[in-house]
Amino acid sequence: MVTVLKLGGSVITRKERPETVDERTLTEAADAVAAAVVGPDPATSDLVLVHGGGSFGHPHAKEHGVTTAEGTSDFRAAMDIHGAMLTLNEAVLSRLHDRNVPALPVHPLSAAARDEDGTLSYAVDTVETMLGEGFVPVLHGDGVVHAGEGVSVLSGDELVVRLAADLDADRVGLCSTVPGVLDLDGAVVPEIGAFEDVHDYLGGSDATDVTGGMAGKVRTLLETGVPAHVFGPDAIDEFLDGGSPGTRIDSR
Amino acid sequence: MVTVLKLGGSVITRKERPETVDERTLTEAADAVAAAVVGPDPATSDLVLVHGGGSFGHPHAKEHGVTTAEGTSDFRAAMDIHGAMLTLNEAVLSRLHDRNVPALPVHPLSAAARDEDGTLSYAVDTVETMLGEGFVPVLHGDGVVHAGEGVSVLSGDELVVRLAADLDADRVGLCSTVPGVLDLDGAVVPEIGAFEDVHDYLGGSDATDVTGGMAGKVRTLLETGVPAHVFGPDAIDEFLDGGSPGTRIDSR
Repeated sequence: MVTVLKLGGSVITRKERPETVDERTLTEAADAVAAAVVGPDPATSDLVLVHGGGSFGHPHAKEHGVTTAEGTSDFRAAMDIHGAMLTLNEAVLSRLHDRNVPALPVHPLSAAARDEDGTLSYAVDTVETMLGEGFVPVLHGDGVVHAGEGVSVLSGDELVVRLAADLDADRVGLCSTVPGVLDLDGAVVPEIGAFEDVHDYLGGSDATDVTGGMAGKVRTLLETGVPAHVFGPDAIDEFLDGGSPGTRIDSR
Repeated sequence: MVTVLKLGGSVITRKERPETVDERTLTEAADAVAAAVVGPDPATSDLVLVHGGGSFGHPHAKEHGVTTAEGTSDFRAAMDIHGAMLTLNEAVLSRLHDRNVPALPVHPLSAAARDEDGTLSYAVDTVETMLGEGFVPVLHGDGVVHAGEGVSVLSGDELVVRLAADLDADRVGLCSTVPGVLDLDGAVVPEIGAFEDVHDYLGGSDATDVTGGMAGKVRTLLETGVPAHVFGPDAIDEFLDGGSPGTRIDSR
């Protein structure tokens, strides 16, 4: 029973202030994860965490003109982006370790690569072995070496989709700043089974927009075939406890 | 033309003082690497660096009873070992970056795994793509997830042997504290073509001794079939310049 949970970058950081953790939300997220995975009878086993970049990775990527498709051959630019993400990852890990969550870092710059078509390979053996040994792998948006491009951006969302497919995950959770996918009245859409259901209020989804908005997230989650939930930070515990908070996205 | 160069842990750290870099030797090593790879007509392209643990990784591994075969399921022990190696890796990277060497870190805890037989897999795509994009991947001894063992030790020497084979390397260099493999009179043996040549003065090689002494290093280097050199820190430039310092080990 593999669960992939993504903590959005804008959930755990303060987007308006460069390289600033949102202490309250990150602490609450760490509490919820600890409640679910630590102890003799955990609600969730085989949990993989992914976090986004928020005010850590994004400003550096933007400054250097690096996207998921356009890379940099300047090692200093690559290390700027990576260094900021390491700092955020250390903040996440330390909150988890303080609560006895057996979290281990998996840094994509060390573990992943894109070929010339942009297709991603990564050390899935490492993630699987960590799960098998009772650890909680923690991945994150990062720089990634990219054939012909130097180092480009790998988003947390892209990682989530690949992990869900490669680990044959049972459930995916996307913890976002909003309580779910919202309709035109701002109400949470309880269930999405096909992209046509929501096209009218999400608008089109540009396939290259992998770090982007909700439309792209919904489309790629539908493609994985793994049931996914989009919810706000106060529903992490409900999701990890097996509940269905926010919007359920399931193409099956 | 792929070259794998290992900087021994006892070369770049002060073994008698916990978590202390040998500033002079590390600086000289970084100078030699920069002279060989930076500039319009570098003597060495496609360089992979590996460094050992020295006084950073080893004391923590010993304290927690973790070896290449015996692991720990305690995330704090794993993070102790990994954290010390990250600190040393940052020290190595910063010296290289200061000299414009386009070095990128590849942390084995993020990128590698052992199966139940101890067989290592790792993100070789990442290393190859870094090389193809003109970066210098820097790997190091580290903790590694190990099926059935938790996290065990992956030595720099084991990485060197795997990288040499997987990247079809042309040359391997082991920079050690001694100027080469020494005979019983303390003189450098110029060439070793078979283990029988040196059995008398190196003694037997225990196959499990992968972080261990010179005998194990020589035996595994002979097995790779890639020409290798064992030399002291003042011969890094000569090796990277295409010379044959110290002891040449070549089974071909």
